[in-house]
Amino acid sequence: MQKTPAGPELDHLIKLLSGLPGLGPRSAKRAALYLLKRREQMMEPLAAALHDAAEKVVPCDVCGNWDSRNPCAICSDPERDDGTICVVQDVADLWALERAGAHRGKYHVLGGVISPLDGIGPDDLNIASLAQRASAAGIKEIILATAATVDGQTTAHYVTDRLDGTGVEVTRLSHGVPVGGELDYLDEGTLAAALKARRPF
Amino acid sequence: MQKTPAGPELDHLIKLLSGLPGLGPRSAKRAALYLLKRREQMMEPLAAALHDAAEKVVPCDVCGNWDSRNPCAICSDPERDDGTICVVQDVADLWALERAGAHRGKYHVLGGVISPLDGIGPDDLNIASLAQRASAAGIKEIILATAATVDGQTTAHYVTDRLDGTGVEVTRLSHGVPVGGELDYLDEGTLAAALKARRPF
Repeated sequence: MQKTPAGPELDHLIKLLSGLPGLGPRSAKRAALYLLKRREQMMEPLAAALHDAAEKVVPCDVCGNWDSRNPCAICSDPERDDGTICVVQDVADLWALERAGAHRGKYHVLGGVISPLDGIGPDDLNIASLAQRASAAGIKEIILATAATVDGQTTAHYVTDRLDGTGVEVTRLSHGVPVGGELDYLDEGTLAAALKARRPF
Repeated sequence: MQKTPAGPELDHLIKLLSGLPGLGPRSAKRAALYLLKRREQMMEPLAAALHDAAEKVVPCDVCGNWDSRNPCAICSDPERDDGTICVVQDVADLWALERAGAHRGKYHVLGGVISPLDGIGPDDLNIASLAQRASAAGIKEIILATAATVDGQTTAHYVTDRLDGTGVEVTRLSHGVPVGGELDYLDEGTLAAALKARRPF
C-alpha cells in the first residue's frame, strides 16, 4: 500500500483499518482522516471500545456465542426453551436469527464449516461439545441452521451422523422462496426445492 | 440501531464502527465479529494505533497538513520548492496530489471550503495564515487546487481576492478531459471547458 506523507503512526493506522472487511486502502484513508477530525468524540472512544471489547467479550463456554458474560445472556435466559438447540456456523448467523426473533430455544455456534480445501476438519469445530449437549437429559430437538452451501450441507450431514444414537430429533431449516421474493429472479435449485416442499394453502 | 445479543461492550463498539465513513450498521457488525476473531493480531493493535495516532498526529503549524512531526515532513523538506504553494481544501486532497507526485512545492490546507449553507465562512478556514505566507519573501506562485464545485470555486475566488496586492502569481488547476476518459461519458461543462482550453498538439 502506498504510504501517506503523514508519518508512520498514521500509515500504521490506515494499514490496520484497510484490513477490516468492507474497507479497502482508499476508504481506510478516508476513515483515518474522518477520525482525526473527531479525536475526542470518535477516535479515542473507538480505541477504548476496541480495547474494552477485546478484553471483556469472550466465547460462551456452553454454546460458543460471544458475550461479555459467561455463560452468555441467551444460555442464562430462564425464559428460553432448554430443549431446543439451533446449530449455526457463526455468531453472525446467531445474530441474524435473533433479529428474526423466531427461535425461542438455545443456540450452538460451530465456529465455521467443514472445508477440506481450507484445511478445516470436524475437530476444528465445536461439534464434540454439541454431541455432549445433545446427550443431556431434556434435549428434544436440534435444528441445523448451517448455510445452504456445499460446505454448510456437508457439515449438517456430519453433525447429523455424530448425533445419531442420542435419540434427539434433528431438523433443518426449510428451503424455499424468500418472503417478498420474485420467482423470476430465483435460481432453479431454489424453485425446485420450493415446489417439492409445497404445503397446503 | 438494533442491539446484538452480545452485551453492551460489543454494542458500543459496533455503534462507533458504524459511524465510520464506508461502514454501515451491517458492515460494522461484520467488522466487529472479524476483529473479535483476531484479538491479538488486529483488535488490540488497532486500539493502540488509534490511540497513538490521536495523540501524535497534529496539524502542521505552517500549512495545516497532518503529521506526527511539526512542521510536517513536506514543510521541513529542503528539497521542495519554497516558492510555490499549492492550496487544497483538505488533507485528503494533499495526499491525492502527493500520490500524483506532480507538485514539488509546498502546500496549504484550508480545512474546508466557504459554504454559507453549512455556516462556514472565510474566518473558519486557514485563509489568514495563507495570506501571511504569501506575503513572505520568495513566494512566486500560489496554485489553487480547490474542488471544481460551486463552493470550491467560490473559495478560490475569495482566496484570490485576499491575495490581491501581495504581487504573487495566482494560478488554478486546468479543467479538461480526465486522462483515460471517454468523451461520451463526460458532462457538457467539462467538454466545453476542455474545448475552450485546447492546446497545440
